[in-house]
Amino acid sequence: VILSKITRCSCIDVYNQPVNPRSLEKLEMIPAGFACPNVEIIATMKKTKEKRCLNPESENVKKILEAISKKR
Amino acid sequence: VILSKITRCSCIDVYNQPVNPRSLEKLEMIPAGFACPNVEIIATMKKTKEKRCLNPESENVKKILEAISKKR
Repeated sequence: VILSKITRCSCIDVYNQPVNPRSLEKLEMIPAGFACPNVEIIATMKKTKEKRCLNPESENVKKILEAISKKR
Repeated sequence: VILSKITRCSCIDVYNQPVNPRSLEKLEMIPAGFACPNVEIIATMKKTKEKRCLNPESENVKKILEAISKKR
């Protein structure tokens, strides 16, 4: 997934495959705003340190957000 | 809020006041893992660029997460 240089959004497209929460080093959530009209969720993968734009609308991502904030 | 240099967690304590989602530039969610046994949520404030550790358990933070991922 290429992070955009031209548009002010960080994500051009989103990674639509399911993601395993355990493979995530961190998630960045950027609210919609002036720079970019879309909510953007960028995952940093543990092993590869690769950054992946996830689809905020997808059930899988919603489950990941819940799973992460629940784990104590 | 001081970001810790000693422990492997990024947050020593959490900011317990309610936070306005519109004041956020971005949220970083770090799942519990080897480095740190706690889930950590670090907000970057728009105006000051200050980083604040938020309490993943607080209702306010849960509402922020929902609000951010809903806004289209």
